[in-house]
Amino acid sequence: MTRVLVTGATGFIGRQTLAPLRALGFDVHATARTPPAEAGDVVWHAADLLDAGTPERLIAKVQPTHLLHMAWNAEPGRYWTTPENLAWAQASFALYRAFTEAGGQRAVGAGTCAEYDWSHSVCGEDVTPLAPTTLYGAAKQAVGTLLCAYGAAHGPSTAWGRVFFLYGPHEHANRLVPAVVRGLLAGERVAVTHGRQVRDFMHVADVAAAFAALVAREDVLGPVNVASGEPISLRELIGQIQGRIEGPGAVDFGARETPAGEPPVLLAEVRRLRDEVGFTPRFDLTTGLEDAIAWWRARG
Amino acid sequence: MTRVLVTGATGFIGRQTLAPLRALGFDVHATARTPPAEAGDVVWHAADLLDAGTPERLIAKVQPTHLLHMAWNAEPGRYWTTPENLAWAQASFALYRAFTEAGGQRAVGAGTCAEYDWSHSVCGEDVTPLAPTTLYGAAKQAVGTLLCAYGAAHGPSTAWGRVFFLYGPHEHANRLVPAVVRGLLAGERVAVTHGRQVRDFMHVADVAAAFAALVAREDVLGPVNVASGEPISLRELIGQIQGRIEGPGAVDFGARETPAGEPPVLLAEVRRLRDEVGFTPRFDLTTGLEDAIAWWRARG
Repeated sequence: MTRVLVTGATGFIGRQTLAPLRALGFDVHATARTPPAEAGDVVWHAADLLDAGTPERLIAKVQPTHLLHMAWNAEPGRYWTTPENLAWAQASFALYRAFTEAGGQRAVGAGTCAEYDWSHSVCGEDVTPLAPTTLYGAAKQAVGTLLCAYGAAHGPSTAWGRVFFLYGPHEHANRLVPAVVRGLLAGERVAVTHGRQVRDFMHVADVAAAFAALVAREDVLGPVNVASGEPISLRELIGQIQGRIEGPGAVDFGARETPAGEPPVLLAEVRRLRDEVGFTPRFDLTTGLEDAIAWWRARG
Repeated sequence: MTRVLVTGATGFIGRQTLAPLRALGFDVHATARTPPAEAGDVVWHAADLLDAGTPERLIAKVQPTHLLHMAWNAEPGRYWTTPENLAWAQASFALYRAFTEAGGQRAVGAGTCAEYDWSHSVCGEDVTPLAPTTLYGAAKQAVGTLLCAYGAAHGPSTAWGRVFFLYGPHEHANRLVPAVVRGLLAGERVAVTHGRQVRDFMHVADVAAAFAALVAREDVLGPVNVASGEPISLRELIGQIQGRIEGPGAVDFGARETPAGEPPVLLAEVRRLRDEVGFTPRFDLTTGLEDAIAWWRARG
C-alpha cells in the first residue's frame, strides 16, 4: 500500500498534484482548511495545520506512507513577510516528525528559489549558497535544510522541491501573468516593470506533476529545483501573451518600479529534475501560455 | 522591569549565564528538567521543553521581557545525529513564537560553528556561507536563521550566538580537555589525534558571560560568533595542560584517528563580539586552563 497525504491540496500547485499522484498509483488523501465539495477519487480531510496538535492527529488518522507537504501561506504581497512563516515552519516540523515517528517512507516538501543567494544567476542545488533575504525564504530554507538533514540521518527518504517561477490556471489574479492576460483581455493598459529580468517559468501543471514524480522517486534525496531550465525575459514572456490577445489593450514597460533586491537574472539548474527524477514537462511556453489565456478567457 | 528566562540553565554553558545576568540587573528565571536544590537568587521552573505545550505555558507563566535559549541535546557522541535535533528545533520555534506573541523584547539563542561551511578556515558571521554537514548543525542553522529573520521583520530584537570550542568546569568528562586533564591527573597515557588541528578555544565562563552581554545589548542583531579569536593548535593546548600537571602521565599524539570531515583550521572572526557587543573575556588560555585543571583536581 502506498498512501500519500497531500497538504495544501486546494492551493495553486497542490490542487494539480492530485491527478498525477493518482496516475502514479497512489491512494491519495488530501488536506485543506476547506476541502472542495466534490471529492473525486481523493479522500479529503478538513484540517488547519496551524492548530496545535492537528498535524499529529492527521498523521495518526491517515497513516500515510508518503507525504507531499505543499501547505504554506502563499497570499500575494503578504507571504514574503507574514509572521505566519514561523508558524508554518513549526507546523512543518510537527507534521514531518509525526510522519517519521509513524514509520513514513518518503516525504517531499515545497521550497523556493528564494532560499538561494540571488547574486548567483544560475542556482544549482549543491553548489549555490543559500542566503535568503526574506522571512519566507528563511522559513522555507529552515524547513528544507532540516528535513533533508533529518531524512539523511534517520529516514524517511526526503526531498525538497525548490519552486521557481510559474503560471497557469488558478493563479492569483494580481500576479504578473494573470495581470497582463486579464488586462489585455479587458482591453486595458497594463503597467509593468522594465521587463528585462530573465527568469525560469514553468506551467503550474508541470510544477505539480514534477512534485508527484518526485514523491514516487524515493531514491532522489535532498533539494531538487522544480523549473523548466528555459530562460526567458519578462519582456519576451509578455510579448508572447500580447501576440495571443487581440484588441485595444497595451503593456506599458517601465511604468512600474522594479522592486529593490530583484536580481536581473534568476535561473535554475534542472539536471536533477530531468536526469535523476526523469521528469519531462508537458507544456512548453507556447502551449502553456495558451492554456493560461484560455483559462482566464473562460472566466471572462 | 527586565526579566530574563534562561532555558537549559543547568547545562554546561547555561549554568554560568545566571550570575552575569544577575550582575547586569536582570530578574532571572531559569528552566531545566531538574532544577538544582539550591535556587540562589534565581527563580527556577522545572520544565521539559520537548513536551508539547510546555514552551507556551512557560512563557505565559514567566512573562519574560528577555529570552536566553540555551536548551538543546548536548550529549557527547550523540548530539550530532540524535533525532532529538528535530524536536529541539520545533520546541525552539514554539518557545520563540510564544515569547514574541507575548510581547517579548529581546531573544538570544545558542548556535554553533557547525552551521558554517568548514571549507572556510576563518568564519565570519556575514561572509562565510552556512553549509552544515551534520543534523545538529542543520537544526541549529534552521533555528538561528529563521529566528533572526523573524526578529528582523517583526521583532523582538533577536541575536544568535555561534559557539566555537570551549572548556571549563562541568564539561562532559569524555571531551578533549577533561579527558587529557583527568588522564594526566591519574598518571595515565592519554590517546589523542595528531593534534595539528587549529581551533578557537574559550573558557565556558567567558562563553556564558558573552551570552549574558549579548542579551543586554539589544541593538546587536543576528549572528554573533562567541569565541576568543585566538588560534591554538590542539598540540599546543595539550602541551599547556601537560606543563601544569606533574606525574607519570603522558599524551600519545596520533594514537586516535582524526574523525572524517574535521577541518585542519576552524577559527572565528570575533569583531562583532568584541566591538559591537563590547565583550572582553576574563580568562586567557593560561588562567582558563588553570581554572579547569583546578576544578578537575578538586574532584580528584
